[in-house]
Amino acid sequence: MLGSRVFGAAVVMAIMAGQPLAAQALIVEKKVFELETYTTVSGATIKDLRIGWEAYGEPNAAKDNVILVTHYFSGNSHAAGKYSAEDARPGYWDSIIGPGKAVDTEKFYVISSDTLVNLGAKNPKVTTTGPASIDPDTGKPYGMTFPIVTIRDFVEVQKKLLESLGITKLHAVMGASMGSLQAYEWAAAYPQMVERVIPVIGSGWADGNLIAWLNIWAAPIKVDPNWNGGDYYDGEPPLKGLAESLKVVTLHAQHWEWANGTFGRAWADKGQDPAASFDHLYKIEAVLDGAGMARAKTSDANHFLYLAKANQLFYAGHGGSLFEGLLAIEAPVLMIHTDEDLIFFPEEVRETAAVIRSDGTPVRILELQGNRGHLDGVIGIAQVGDQIRAFLGD
Amino acid sequence: MLGSRVFGAAVVMAIMAGQPLAAQALIVEKKVFELETYTTVSGATIKDLRIGWEAYGEPNAAKDNVILVTHYFSGNSHAAGKYSAEDARPGYWDSIIGPGKAVDTEKFYVISSDTLVNLGAKNPKVTTTGPASIDPDTGKPYGMTFPIVTIRDFVEVQKKLLESLGITKLHAVMGASMGSLQAYEWAAAYPQMVERVIPVIGSGWADGNLIAWLNIWAAPIKVDPNWNGGDYYDGEPPLKGLAESLKVVTLHAQHWEWANGTFGRAWADKGQDPAASFDHLYKIEAVLDGAGMARAKTSDANHFLYLAKANQLFYAGHGGSLFEGLLAIEAPVLMIHTDEDLIFFPEEVRETAAVIRSDGTPVRILELQGNRGHLDGVIGIAQVGDQIRAFLGD
Repeated sequence: MLGSRVFGAAVVMAIMAGQPLAAQALIVEKKVFELETYTTVSGATIKDLRIGWEAYGEPNAAKDNVILVTHYFSGNSHAAGKYSAEDARPGYWDSIIGPGKAVDTEKFYVISSDTLVNLGAKNPKVTTTGPASIDPDTGKPYGMTFPIVTIRDFVEVQKKLLESLGITKLHAVMGASMGSLQAYEWAAAYPQMVERVIPVIGSGWADGNLIAWLNIWAAPIKVDPNWNGGDYYDGEPPLKGLAESLKVVTLHAQHWEWANGTFGRAWADKGQDPAASFDHLYKIEAVLDGAGMARAKTSDANHFLYLAKANQLFYAGHGGSLFEGLLAIEAPVLMIHTDEDLIFFPEEVRETAAVIRSDGTPVRILELQGNRGHLDGVIGIAQVGDQIRAFLGD
Repeated sequence: MLGSRVFGAAVVMAIMAGQPLAAQALIVEKKVFELETYTTVSGATIKDLRIGWEAYGEPNAAKDNVILVTHYFSGNSHAAGKYSAEDARPGYWDSIIGPGKAVDTEKFYVISSDTLVNLGAKNPKVTTTGPASIDPDTGKPYGMTFPIVTIRDFVEVQKKLLESLGITKLHAVMGASMGSLQAYEWAAAYPQMVERVIPVIGSGWADGNLIAWLNIWAAPIKVDPNWNGGDYYDGEPPLKGLAESLKVVTLHAQHWEWANGTFGRAWADKGQDPAASFDHLYKIEAVLDGAGMARAKTSDANHFLYLAKANQLFYAGHGGSLFEGLLAIEAPVLMIHTDEDLIFFPEEVRETAAVIRSDGTPVRILELQGNRGHLDGVIGIAQVGDQIRAFLGD
């Protein structure tokens, strides 16, 4: 009774404050953008390229109210809203994107697209082109014959999507983790087109440490015999290796405070002491196993390898010296990060800011609080909602 | 010429200061300790148990000048000195163990032994009993039928070794990483026997985060089809999976400052742009691949899994509540750690100190400097040599 009374009060307060209720959640539709042919930055041709995208809000007449949201490694274009009212969860940044929210869809037209080689190749809500796609020239999946693509390619395809919609200016580009790499790349490659940049939990280049960890992430896939050099589309996919790879990503994107605070030394099953058998697990092991396998089932192993490669190859500007791209950025930058990040270390984020700022480009850094490490850039983003709203202006 | 003159002066100064020259390096001999039968803490029986050990210095008449050195996860009993003058490198803590050094072998009798299920089962200088050993009852390697052993079992076997030598008191127990877990366990289990404890880069229990990472470390082995449920001694061992597991350990024990300062974005091979092929690596990837495979060749995959399990199961005292063992410690503790440690986080180390100190046991904490992360507890230990010397007293 107390619970329902409190809930009732909350609903009343939400209505008074003009906040949208759950029943009024943003309903979004996944669309598909197609290109007959796309030439990668390295010069390879991809035919019949298709990527999924979705949008929140409406473009204004001048089409100058557009915000592009770029997604993280294991993410996709579903940044906000629900596909239907029955969906269990909305998109990953729903806490800041929507009517009246920090990224206000009553003001802005917010667009998000699936990247090339998107991890969720088997997710029915993802449309992507990559090694799991059919090569029109052979009628078979590309496998490892798919050309190596880069963060810059992700940006180029997004640019073509925007052009197809008549959009030539971006009020802002914002993204978390791998999404921040795309945001830096956008601002470095097309400084006249990008008016604001919000890179979240990411730095301006993949450093030696990240390159090495991406290698570690990918390793279990290549150890799995079902991977078979990437040629598995006629048989069993390397689900076991892929699940282990996704486990590493899941744990690495968290923080020890979460691991210890949530699980500590709890056993997976009461009465099944981990000391008694290799089959008896600690709870955190069982949870990671379950999460890895669940994600593996909608993912493709070769796509994982291509994504890892794209991230390793990244440095803003994609060409020239390491810092040229960052120095080319002219738009004001709002960098959001957390000192608990174990993937993109805070010192590197601050160094990125120092480079961009060195020729007069304004950079502001916000630090997130939380115990989820890297992941706080996704699940804890609302705590800097007011600052994002102010940075975006009108 | 300048170089040789400077070197000449250094030699003269070393002689004047009474320091040992390289030519006078400690020469050590590996010995073997055997037990006809050993009953594990969980009640399983291991027959014909054999472990290697070595010692530096000489016991005094009362045998009360003994310091036990316990080794880390991928280490063994070779803590100091060389087996022959031609050896390329001495034992891992040679910078602090030897005549006139911080752990002065002119004063102390320093003993170190290979643990049970030691990783280096194929290293000719390691003697250990574990899943790769022949089960006397079957005449075949145990594989995964070997009993699960714990850090406490490592301690119990060391105790029997000491007893066989007539040693009933330890002037000190000291060890790095998994060696620190053994040091805590010694002091918790046998407070009347241990006079001083020096745990280096480790905390008083395996927390949820470490449990999860040990699972991640072990995963590639189990994905390798050659692992075959641990039954591979008649065929090809799971070398590929084991090499990947050792790569994770190697990187995790380092720090991003090392990865970036040493390798950055350098390519493995000039002219082989990583953007052009999945076979073209960054230098840090190639170095980790090489290190992983080199270590895999002298290691055993099942031993790795048993070691990971032993570490997961660890909390000081091995029974009762989480902190009981730490509270049982009565010997003064010198904890040495680094804030750059990504395996045993500094907060957990400090919490361990707080628990031990809470009932009046004196604890001093020293912080190492360096850019090698966890590994600085092995390679950077000499920087606290003076404090170790003072703590050990006479």
